[in-house]
Amino acid sequence: MPVISKRGQQMPNSPIRKLVPLAESAERRGIKVYRLNIGQPDIPTSPNALAAIKNISSPIIDYGHSAGNESLRKKFVEYYKSINIELDYTDILITTGASEAITLTLLTCLNAGDEIIVPEPFYANYFSFATATDVEVIPVTSTIESGFALPPVSEFEKRITSKTKAIIICNPNNPTGHVYSQKELEQIRDMVVRHDLFLLCDEVYRELCYDDTVFTSAMQIDGLDKHLILIDSVSKRYSATGLRVGLIASRNKELLQTTLKFCQARLCPPNIGQLAAEAALDSPPEYLDMVYNEFLKRRNFIVNELNSIEGVFCPVPKGAFYVMVKLPVDDAEKFAMWMLEDFSYDNKTVMLAPGSGFYYNTDLGRQEVRVAYVLNINDLKIALDCLRRGLQAYPGRTLSANKLKDTVITSIK
Amino acid sequence: MPVISKRGQQMPNSPIRKLVPLAESAERRGIKVYRLNIGQPDIPTSPNALAAIKNISSPIIDYGHSAGNESLRKKFVEYYKSINIELDYTDILITTGASEAITLTLLTCLNAGDEIIVPEPFYANYFSFATATDVEVIPVTSTIESGFALPPVSEFEKRITSKTKAIIICNPNNPTGHVYSQKELEQIRDMVVRHDLFLLCDEVYRELCYDDTVFTSAMQIDGLDKHLILIDSVSKRYSATGLRVGLIASRNKELLQTTLKFCQARLCPPNIGQLAAEAALDSPPEYLDMVYNEFLKRRNFIVNELNSIEGVFCPVPKGAFYVMVKLPVDDAEKFAMWMLEDFSYDNKTVMLAPGSGFYYNTDLGRQEVRVAYVLNINDLKIALDCLRRGLQAYPGRTLSANKLKDTVITSIK
Repeated sequence: MPVISKRGQQMPNSPIRKLVPLAESAERRGIKVYRLNIGQPDIPTSPNALAAIKNISSPIIDYGHSAGNESLRKKFVEYYKSINIELDYTDILITTGASEAITLTLLTCLNAGDEIIVPEPFYANYFSFATATDVEVIPVTSTIESGFALPPVSEFEKRITSKTKAIIICNPNNPTGHVYSQKELEQIRDMVVRHDLFLLCDEVYRELCYDDTVFTSAMQIDGLDKHLILIDSVSKRYSATGLRVGLIASRNKELLQTTLKFCQARLCPPNIGQLAAEAALDSPPEYLDMVYNEFLKRRNFIVNELNSIEGVFCPVPKGAFYVMVKLPVDDAEKFAMWMLEDFSYDNKTVMLAPGSGFYYNTDLGRQEVRVAYVLNINDLKIALDCLRRGLQAYPGRTLSANKLKDTVITSIK
Repeated sequence: MPVISKRGQQMPNSPIRKLVPLAESAERRGIKVYRLNIGQPDIPTSPNALAAIKNISSPIIDYGHSAGNESLRKKFVEYYKSINIELDYTDILITTGASEAITLTLLTCLNAGDEIIVPEPFYANYFSFATATDVEVIPVTSTIESGFALPPVSEFEKRITSKTKAIIICNPNNPTGHVYSQKELEQIRDMVVRHDLFLLCDEVYRELCYDDTVFTSAMQIDGLDKHLILIDSVSKRYSATGLRVGLIASRNKELLQTTLKFCQARLCPPNIGQLAAEAALDSPPEYLDMVYNEFLKRRNFIVNELNSIEGVFCPVPKGAFYVMVKLPVDDAEKFAMWMLEDFSYDNKTVMLAPGSGFYYNTDLGRQEVRVAYVLNINDLKIALDCLRRGLQAYPGRTLSANKLKDTVITSIK
């Protein structure tokens, strides 16, 4: 038979999705699976978005503009204005989710073989998008022991070579919850300007910052106009992941003109999704407050619960809705599989995302998992009870991570 | 500023979409633009699809399965069964339109630098998808003078090198209207098996074959199980282009497992689109008959009308809803721009897709345009009147194409 491509062979299985067949198999055996592996909140989609879908009046679901519907782009301009970001609608290209936004940006900014620097642990699919576009990921490692504090910018700079074309950051960070300070962003700005690099900034969790953390957008940092590509999405903000509507924003017109050519090839983003997204941007403040308060409550709950399990360690995330958690197990991926294949308590179990896929050097995440706190407190309670019992019963358990708990502050005030 | 990637620079502007800014500018001047550049029919979307959208009941528009919703994949199995194609739902991956299906298939089957053989003129975006994935397009040219008859398979075989990994055909063909005979498909089968190549077969216009033309799907040709990737879409069949729902079907499980990794990275296809597509597959036969009869009527009308214009030549397409047309002009792209920028009749004009973008050697399409007969007869009448008058007034007109009309049969019985 003909041979599959090398890039196809090298493409990683998503750590977030690869265990889905095991979860489906458990469900077929009658087991309820609490899915903490994926950023799919159980929060209802913005009522404005749902109403827009139900009220569609056009008799034809036709192609839209390759850059996205002008009315949606203009609505985004209003939204950005409301959070003190000045953009023109021509600075915006609507994409099929942030996923497509990142892929098209990589294609626009990097050639095959070029390098992109990424702080790790990173959103696992960054590595997938880079593999699909033949781009080399160069990691800068942050550690769970330091609460995933951002390594100094000098660590990034050390990794810059003649092949380096871009840096990508996720702010607030998936999976660590790190929120970049204005000072950190300015240091990164100085570096990308000095080395003439592109800066990709993924801000899809912008509204979810906790405690006293102040969010600064890279779009609010001066001097980045030619360098910055903002990645955004309505998926998380309006609990509307299935719409597949994201965007690229940049003040670099030449860059956007180039990206538009890739957009033209795939014709247009999903049109009903765009209609719904446009309505979602008019969601009442009460909806967004509800979403925020819900995630804050869940974060506080899950961090305290996780750290109360013997041998488990989880730093306090300052943003987004994930925690990276160190487990007292030999191999977190084996454990996650075991939880789906061999374990259940009261006919229930938990699905986790193995941490190894969030690191370039997969071994660094061998004892970690990413947990998405996307279920309501009641479900989280049951899920964490399963996890606690699973960790007690797992044949490959260790307790080496235990003493970590005394070295950093992990409880929520 | 940082430098745009070479692949970004090499990416072509879509001949179908690149003139959109000129059309928008004409519209702002109050001119009605008849858009024959793009395969966007004015036919209402399947009523079943529209009803499904209006009746969504889920409170959360959530992620679906990366392979596509199981219920939709199973519904496609029924559809294929009804047209004598046997597939299992696990042979199917739902994609964000046929566009994504082709891109993901290229990534799965070819490495950067590998070659794909494509009969030309081809769907212009094949070239774009190949450029985006660093794949080399090797054309096999068919000519308007021969009515775009498929060149003998020996012409394909001559172009096979150690870098050739695949052949892509579109059947019925966009833009030529060629419908592949069973014999042609068997010859292609023998070739791809002999040289161990992948065969990508894009059949999104399957139901639109005219006159006595019998459609054969590559899926009905024996011996291709490891080689064939079928590309499909609901866009054209149900007049639902904006849903962005297509698919990849293959009996090669290893191939699909690899493609699924690319699917996982982008999470899922648009979920409301999938819901609507599933309903569309239940469209009543009367809807599909209406669509078919409408396109047949339009084809007959437009071919006769075009060939009645002095100096214009257009072979009779046997399928899909496009014609490649030779115009008596110095440069069809200049003419298409002139029609939008400098011409109007009774405040109306026509938008055409310049032919050059449908050829690897763009010069071959210098006097050709692709016309999509996607408007109703009334609108087509006005559009063709504009075109006729535009051709008379265009400063760069020639009449060299005129004598072609005596050499082939171009009228519809």
